[in-house]
Amino acid sequence: MSDFSFTIEHTDGASRAGVFTTPHGRVDTPAFMAVGTLATVKALDPDDLRAMGAQMILGNAYHLHLRPGDETIRDLGGLHAFMAWDGPVLTDSGGFQVFSLEGLRTVSEDGVEFRSHLDGSLRAFSPESVMRIERNLGADVIMQFDHVIPGQSDEPTARDASERSLRWLARCAAEVGRWEPGGSGAEQALFPIVQGGIHESLRRAAARSIRDSGDWIGYGIGGLSVGEAKPEMYRILGVVDSELPRDRPRYLMGVGFPEDLVEGVRRGVDLFDCVAPTRMGRNGAAFTRDGRLNIKRAEFRLDKRPLDEDCDCSACRRFARAYIRHLFMADEILGLRLLSLHNVHFLVRLMRDARTAIRDGTSDAWSRDWLARYQSRPVTSE
Amino acid sequence: MSDFSFTIEHTDGASRAGVFTTPHGRVDTPAFMAVGTLATVKALDPDDLRAMGAQMILGNAYHLHLRPGDETIRDLGGLHAFMAWDGPVLTDSGGFQVFSLEGLRTVSEDGVEFRSHLDGSLRAFSPESVMRIERNLGADVIMQFDHVIPGQSDEPTARDASERSLRWLARCAAEVGRWEPGGSGAEQALFPIVQGGIHESLRRAAARSIRDSGDWIGYGIGGLSVGEAKPEMYRILGVVDSELPRDRPRYLMGVGFPEDLVEGVRRGVDLFDCVAPTRMGRNGAAFTRDGRLNIKRAEFRLDKRPLDEDCDCSACRRFARAYIRHLFMADEILGLRLLSLHNVHFLVRLMRDARTAIRDGTSDAWSRDWLARYQSRPVTSE
Repeated sequence: MSDFSFTIEHTDGASRAGVFTTPHGRVDTPAFMAVGTLATVKALDPDDLRAMGAQMILGNAYHLHLRPGDETIRDLGGLHAFMAWDGPVLTDSGGFQVFSLEGLRTVSEDGVEFRSHLDGSLRAFSPESVMRIERNLGADVIMQFDHVIPGQSDEPTARDASERSLRWLARCAAEVGRWEPGGSGAEQALFPIVQGGIHESLRRAAARSIRDSGDWIGYGIGGLSVGEAKPEMYRILGVVDSELPRDRPRYLMGVGFPEDLVEGVRRGVDLFDCVAPTRMGRNGAAFTRDGRLNIKRAEFRLDKRPLDEDCDCSACRRFARAYIRHLFMADEILGLRLLSLHNVHFLVRLMRDARTAIRDGTSDAWSRDWLARYQSRPVTSE
Repeated sequence: MSDFSFTIEHTDGASRAGVFTTPHGRVDTPAFMAVGTLATVKALDPDDLRAMGAQMILGNAYHLHLRPGDETIRDLGGLHAFMAWDGPVLTDSGGFQVFSLEGLRTVSEDGVEFRSHLDGSLRAFSPESVMRIERNLGADVIMQFDHVIPGQSDEPTARDASERSLRWLARCAAEVGRWEPGGSGAEQALFPIVQGGIHESLRRAAARSIRDSGDWIGYGIGGLSVGEAKPEMYRILGVVDSELPRDRPRYLMGVGFPEDLVEGVRRGVDLFDCVAPTRMGRNGAAFTRDGRLNIKRAEFRLDKRPLDEDCDCSACRRFARAYIRHLFMADEILGLRLLSLHNVHFLVRLMRDARTAIRDGTSDAWSRDWLARYQSRPVTSE
């Protein structure tokens, strides 16, 4: 008996509306997961996330291993208790982070040696050690340790990384298989990650190999939105969609922007995550139905309208653009919070709206209309 | 018919429990008012303040005049609408700020010339111009423009500043008297400010002069907690208490720390404000019933207890010291918010508890016990 299940309630083309159930509750899919890198979604309170209807959030194994330490979090009751989030949590394996440390790392078949971005100390991640870190953190979904490469990598490079990721998946699964049942409390679902860069044959091979290697609770799609052109990403998503089991949730890692979510849902993706809404929010950029808006621009000095007139987030219900602009010009912390809150809400609600459209069988028209309006005006420079 | 009233419900020695009614609602006194210098209580959301039971907050005329401009705020509907706070608001006159700009200002009988701390531009405040700024901001209570001096100033210096403040009060009142009734929306109450440094005779003379000059809705007590010793402040409070009308609210400006609030209530003060709870919070210091605590200390690394085991704020109800310490070590914004929230809640609740003790006739024992416990342990270094 698994604590996990995935039920598809409606399909519309390749799009799916489902319910992913975890030991810490349900996630209505498609869903955007806010990123709590260091056990906090930057500038937000867990209550903000609950109030906007966010159901599942992320933590990051690399960052939490370094600070405050995964053993510290284990001793404090695990990530859920630590950050006062009783809903579902997923932890990234740190693959993306350690492979982003250009010049600071050495890859071998065993794993990766790297230097901490905090103090330069020498560290090593292996598939086994990352699993133990993710066990200590105690998230509901734990991602395999994978070899991430730049989006434009050539075929031999992409093949090497993808095949290594498959071998590392087997080692991750073996490590998880050695754990005492219930040893870390609730059950944890190990998600494999499909790699292969922008090379269709590699993506197919990876998806098939993973599919044939086990009955996975869900599937990650990695190595996208890492520098490749957007049409490449959409093409690869279509390939992966056709190869992965349809009855399991698919998680497109590190994606993304509103238009990427809409395009991803059209290609059968169920889960997304990205730091964009909070990072952009801290820089003064807000998503709106009509594209992005830079709140620092002088044109908003006396603007009494909310960030987005169609938005029902707690920033838009209360504050004018003029006020939020003032907060940014005066370096006030509330400004960072309000734009972060608005942007995360924007993506959470976007996925709720997508779900409704799928249920109604109107998702194709809905997504085309949505994209046309979002892209109709020149994007306000950030 | 005034939109303002003050009803004393209970007295206990010099302490009073009352209700101060304003056009934007009631304030149960004694009360601590959180400071929203730039139209935001730093790191907090208005909803946080409402949730903790804060009733009245401050804005600052000097800061808001410079940024975003008082006329901008007027055009956006006034301070209440601008910052989405529909409760009572008080604005400080900027006296304290411009007199803090050592070397950057010139005082004359007409007013003060100073340079903006933002861009060095030459500016001038007069009693009349400050009243117009405070009218534009639209707070319920507006403070007179006064001449603020260091706490240790000698008698001639203090006399000069106090007498100038009295002449400026007359000019402030004359300016307010010229306003169209209801011209800026709701009625605004001009509070005079008793100055006089640490010199008893000057304080008595100022209080009597103000009392004799009009039937004021409330009274400010200024120029304390500006460098003088605490016993001097308490002595002067006792003097002013005996000179001001007992049936009006007294506001001790810029004070203060928990112990100052308890001592102030014992001397008939009804309203307090201070940036200490938010400023200290952003620096990692938390008020607790047993004194201050510096959350960054290593001893809290694995501490599962809340900041203060007696506290029911939304930080203490949810988070361990270990988590909040982690947020500070990782420079996460949520840490600033949680400590600011806890500290403001601490003072708001302290005044609620004082009110209860006054009602019960136990305020003398309550305040002695409170101070003994708060001061019983060595203060954790900040």
